[in-house]
Amino acid sequence: MNVWLIVGIVSGVISVGAALYLYFWVMRQDAGSERAQEVAGWIREGAASYLKRLYIALTLVAVVLGFIIAIVFSFDLTQLGTGSVDITPTNGVIMAAAFIFGALSSAVAGYMGMAVAVQANVRSAVAVSESLNKGFRVAFYAGAVMGLAMVGLAIIGMCSIFLLTGNPEVILGFSFGASTLALLAKAGGGIYTKTADIAADLVGKIEVGIPEDDPRNPAVVADNVGDNVGDVAGMGADIFDSYVASTVAAMLLGAAMAGPDNLKYTVFPLILCTLGIFASLLGIQFVRVGKDGKPGTALNFGTIITCVIFGVMVIALVLLGGYDMSTLWSTLVGLIVGVVVGFTTEYFTSEDFKPVQETARVSSSGAAITIITGFSYGLLSIFPSIIGIVIATLVSFYISEASGVVSGIYGIGISAVGMLSISGMIVSSDAYGPIVDNARGIAEMAGMDHSVIVKADILDSAGNTAKAITKGFSISAAALTVLALFAAYAEIIEARGISVEISLRSPLVIAGVLLGAMTPPIFSALTMLSVTHNAFDMIEEIRRQFKAEPGILLGTVVPDYKTCVSLAAHGALSSLVIPAFLAVGAPLLVGFVLGPDALGGFLGGAIFTGVIFALLMSNAGGLWDNAKKFIETGQYGGVGSEAHKAGVIGDTVGDPFKDTAGPSLNTLITVMSLVSSLFAPVIAAFHIF
Amino acid sequence: MNVWLIVGIVSGVISVGAALYLYFWVMRQDAGSERAQEVAGWIREGAASYLKRLYIALTLVAVVLGFIIAIVFSFDLTQLGTGSVDITPTNGVIMAAAFIFGALSSAVAGYMGMAVAVQANVRSAVAVSESLNKGFRVAFYAGAVMGLAMVGLAIIGMCSIFLLTGNPEVILGFSFGASTLALLAKAGGGIYTKTADIAADLVGKIEVGIPEDDPRNPAVVADNVGDNVGDVAGMGADIFDSYVASTVAAMLLGAAMAGPDNLKYTVFPLILCTLGIFASLLGIQFVRVGKDGKPGTALNFGTIITCVIFGVMVIALVLLGGYDMSTLWSTLVGLIVGVVVGFTTEYFTSEDFKPVQETARVSSSGAAITIITGFSYGLLSIFPSIIGIVIATLVSFYISEASGVVSGIYGIGISAVGMLSISGMIVSSDAYGPIVDNARGIAEMAGMDHSVIVKADILDSAGNTAKAITKGFSISAAALTVLALFAAYAEIIEARGISVEISLRSPLVIAGVLLGAMTPPIFSALTMLSVTHNAFDMIEEIRRQFKAEPGILLGTVVPDYKTCVSLAAHGALSSLVIPAFLAVGAPLLVGFVLGPDALGGFLGGAIFTGVIFALLMSNAGGLWDNAKKFIETGQYGGVGSEAHKAGVIGDTVGDPFKDTAGPSLNTLITVMSLVSSLFAPVIAAFHIF
Repeated sequence: MNVWLIVGIVSGVISVGAALYLYFWVMRQDAGSERAQEVAGWIREGAASYLKRLYIALTLVAVVLGFIIAIVFSFDLTQLGTGSVDITPTNGVIMAAAFIFGALSSAVAGYMGMAVAVQANVRSAVAVSESLNKGFRVAFYAGAVMGLAMVGLAIIGMCSIFLLTGNPEVILGFSFGASTLALLAKAGGGIYTKTADIAADLVGKIEVGIPEDDPRNPAVVADNVGDNVGDVAGMGADIFDSYVASTVAAMLLGAAMAGPDNLKYTVFPLILCTLGIFASLLGIQFVRVGKDGKPGTALNFGTIITCVIFGVMVIALVLLGGYDMSTLWSTLVGLIVGVVVGFTTEYFTSEDFKPVQETARVSSSGAAITIITGFSYGLLSIFPSIIGIVIATLVSFYISEASGVVSGIYGIGISAVGMLSISGMIVSSDAYGPIVDNARGIAEMAGMDHSVIVKADILDSAGNTAKAITKGFSISAAALTVLALFAAYAEIIEARGISVEISLRSPLVIAGVLLGAMTPPIFSALTMLSVTHNAFDMIEEIRRQFKAEPGILLGTVVPDYKTCVSLAAHGALSSLVIPAFLAVGAPLLVGFVLGPDALGGFLGGAIFTGVIFALLMSNAGGLWDNAKKFIETGQYGGVGSEAHKAGVIGDTVGDPFKDTAGPSLNTLITVMSLVSSLFAPVIAAFHIF
Repeated sequence: MNVWLIVGIVSGVISVGAALYLYFWVMRQDAGSERAQEVAGWIREGAASYLKRLYIALTLVAVVLGFIIAIVFSFDLTQLGTGSVDITPTNGVIMAAAFIFGALSSAVAGYMGMAVAVQANVRSAVAVSESLNKGFRVAFYAGAVMGLAMVGLAIIGMCSIFLLTGNPEVILGFSFGASTLALLAKAGGGIYTKTADIAADLVGKIEVGIPEDDPRNPAVVADNVGDNVGDVAGMGADIFDSYVASTVAAMLLGAAMAGPDNLKYTVFPLILCTLGIFASLLGIQFVRVGKDGKPGTALNFGTIITCVIFGVMVIALVLLGGYDMSTLWSTLVGLIVGVVVGFTTEYFTSEDFKPVQETARVSSSGAAITIITGFSYGLLSIFPSIIGIVIATLVSFYISEASGVVSGIYGIGISAVGMLSISGMIVSSDAYGPIVDNARGIAEMAGMDHSVIVKADILDSAGNTAKAITKGFSISAAALTVLALFAAYAEIIEARGISVEISLRSPLVIAGVLLGAMTPPIFSALTMLSVTHNAFDMIEEIRRQFKAEPGILLGTVVPDYKTCVSLAAHGALSSLVIPAFLAVGAPLLVGFVLGPDALGGFLGGAIFTGVIFALLMSNAGGLWDNAKKFIETGQYGGVGSEAHKAGVIGDTVGDPFKDTAGPSLNTLITVMSLVSSLFAPVIAAFHIF
């Protein structure tokens, strides 16, 4: 099997190499006029200053957690009667190293994504003035830098750890590192971006009546920085996290199976990732917009072709490699459900269908009706995704169980990996969105020609649709991942000879489920209250600047962008303390007090409500956003009408739903699952009840 | 034990007698001027016409369901290898009769409540012009009519069925009947009241600028009828439902225990209800407002004194009756947690505390911030209730388990009964709210003196606080009830010799939980979309009337109230079809397809998200309502300010949250649990997977 691990590392190196190649390609593009470069420079600086603060905070967290891991895993728990044999003094240091390696890999991928995004935005704006296709390519290839860097670094990390230690539990440490970073990057970025966005809109658009992305607005740079730190770096870290977590979960479930082929199936998830990387590298070549083509179609076509290439590769692998056929079906069902769920998300968030149109229509009766209607459709949007997750779970479980070769839960793990294996392509499409959003902003701020802004708008709108699809995809992928991690949690404990019974007939488990189920809503509340709280501070700063320097509004004085950038960064990072503590501390508290059965219930509860709230918030947010845009196309009175005012309120409510709370929940439940699995042996040994 | 059953029936007769006495007392009060009587007459007629339609719909549903029950339970399932012995041909008819008896009892209690409420509103308005205390007494005693009728009829039904059949499973049929009625009454009433409220406000207050409760508004009568059908009849049916369901769950769990004292503990829940009735009858005597006293304090004092009386009675019962001491602790922990959770609800919804004040403060930045902040606090409000439910569950389980006499799950059942035993008092306080709300409306519409309206406002405000507390109480009581029913479900199946394993490690159970968990959000969405849809129709009707007859707005022509009343009634009832089918059909579908283990998971999932969404929606709704009222006291600019406009939007969003979707979820999960328990033996015998 070692040859596959080496192939995996090679594929990772190729992927990172391709990312670097695209990076330099993007950098060679025309960076435009001095004015455009100046504007892009402000955004770049703001992003860099945020990243610096984030990485300092992260280093602190990583050192503390790494130290705890090193100590905890250095005790020989065998003496405490848990039957554990894996945990020996050496492993403490190895675990801590894997943890830091994971955090570092995710950070590097995120940094590369940001670094290219803040250069590509202005270049895309310049390129789009030449042709739509050129602008599209700059933005998409820049997005691919992050997509490819991410999957490349992930596979290098996982394969090399397994090559060195042969123990998938060490990869859990790597995965936990990546998740910890993702939690900070995603939640922090989400708070940052919406703080700036809401503050800029409320004072700029509503109070003083200047347009979006107007350079007179002191918060405009912070708003554009937010797109990068929230949507590029945050989203990348989020999928990195699910990608690694699903792979390690499937590996652990493979390793837990009895039989001689055990190792073969433990490595299988890594091979799937390797094939997914090659499929993404090929799929990216197919993403092109013709002269009159639509960028949205190009992105979707790229996703579908990647799936097809990947599917063919997996068929070949299973047939030639002598794997059980059930692994093929599990992979494919995961892949298909992921894509189908992604596209059903479009139904609820695209202006071509009833939910958005109906929400726009009722908006003429006022904002309250807009909110109630959009929220209700958001609740309904849970339905197709849950059905998809249920189908993927049941089909992959029973086909695998029936094979007699692999275990049913291994099948669930493989379906999650199947879904996420094309992450390279998914992240590329997704990172495209904020880049073109920024490109539009820069075009506006730098005073480019109106025709450029119109074309940038076309690119931007395709980005929004792509974002809705990848969000649906990433939530359902995360759901399957955590279900696999949940199964792995029980396996890890049972491997220590301790039985786990997560029966809903036990009151301890019920207590665990209730406590777990309330964690995602509370986490959402904390992050959203941070947004409104920080936005309030920034609103005061914007008002202060307008008052202190009347030249700003006249356009004769450049506003103090830096103070707003700094306010957003400081606010976001200091708001993370309690949510981060909740994510890591709550499962440990439940585990050490109520025991491993209750912790199993806790994870289950967190997964169930986490998935539901993530779907609700992401989809309702996307729906309100597009309902407003639909009204802006002239429907129901168009811009300035009562319906539009209501639509703007709906959109603003949706902002922290879809960009702060909703997408952070994926990471929250992954972090909690990983903490639990990682500390499972220790919790099994020490707990009060 | 028969003597206790007879005492129970006697207590029920006394309670119903007291209700009738109070009814005639209220009817003897001064009904005021001709104008006031005319206004009250409109409301009375509207309520009667809605009730007539509701009862026709209910009769249809009851006949169909009763017929199905009679047939299904007439088969001898023993021949199908389920080991069932209880289900013999006779039982089909008995079950169907019990079902119809349950629906009828709840309907009669609701009818009595409505009948007195629509007479008491005008009498309370007249009485308050004499003195605050007089007005308070009329409204509270009218509320007590429903409270006492409800608990009286419930105990008569349960005791007489048990006396006749000796089989608590037949009481399940009674309970299912009551729940079916509650679902229709609560969800239908909730849709009705908010359709009228929102439509009246949007056209009346916002479009044409006339005050609330203005007689020129064609929807004003429908709005006042809505208070009665939604808050009086609906709420009463809801608590009737929980009250009976918790008692039958505890009886089933008692009957499932081994040992000679089995019957003694099976009857114990009925004895608790009996004592609760006596405690409520005594407690009601203590509810009085002094000359300068506060009505809110009077209501809370009544609740606390009832708890104390009940506590003392239970201590005497357990000591003298030779019951195990654990039953005392379980009862008390349920009672205390119910009251404490009720009061913590006040923290999140009263203007004296941070959540409401903070939401009011940020409203000056616009409606979007009001929504985000209120929603976030609503999410946080889940915390204390869930902790309370967890404590009640764990404490009652472990104390009972440790006793060696009763089973742990029996303890959970008893704590639910403990919580609900004082329902007579709780419903009395709760029904007071809509009566004084109506009194205020009538005072306004009938053009009474301003000083009367001010005093009516004081009564109304106390009603709102009481409502928040009883809502928190009823949600946590419903949560414990369904947890007990959930345990009973498994016991019923196992009594047939079939083992049930609701383990979260089984993918079928996980599938069940995911499907169950999405039911409450989808149910909420359907009911809320009905509200906006129906409100839209009514808005058009109001606009049509204003346009067709300009004399309406001048006050020279009486608007056509009846059409609005009829629109609301028709809309509410036709909107119930899909939600009602979901409540009854979904558990049966999951059970017959995926089997009893998955159905167990389904129930668990529905309970977890049901409780969370119920708390979120009720509390966020209450919070927005009071934030608006807080601004209206002159804070942050007072009436007419930007903050006030935002507050009004928040309040309107909260309307269907707190009065339609939120409170219906209790009933939804109770109905689903009862359907499952009732059909458990049949599902255990026939299922696909």
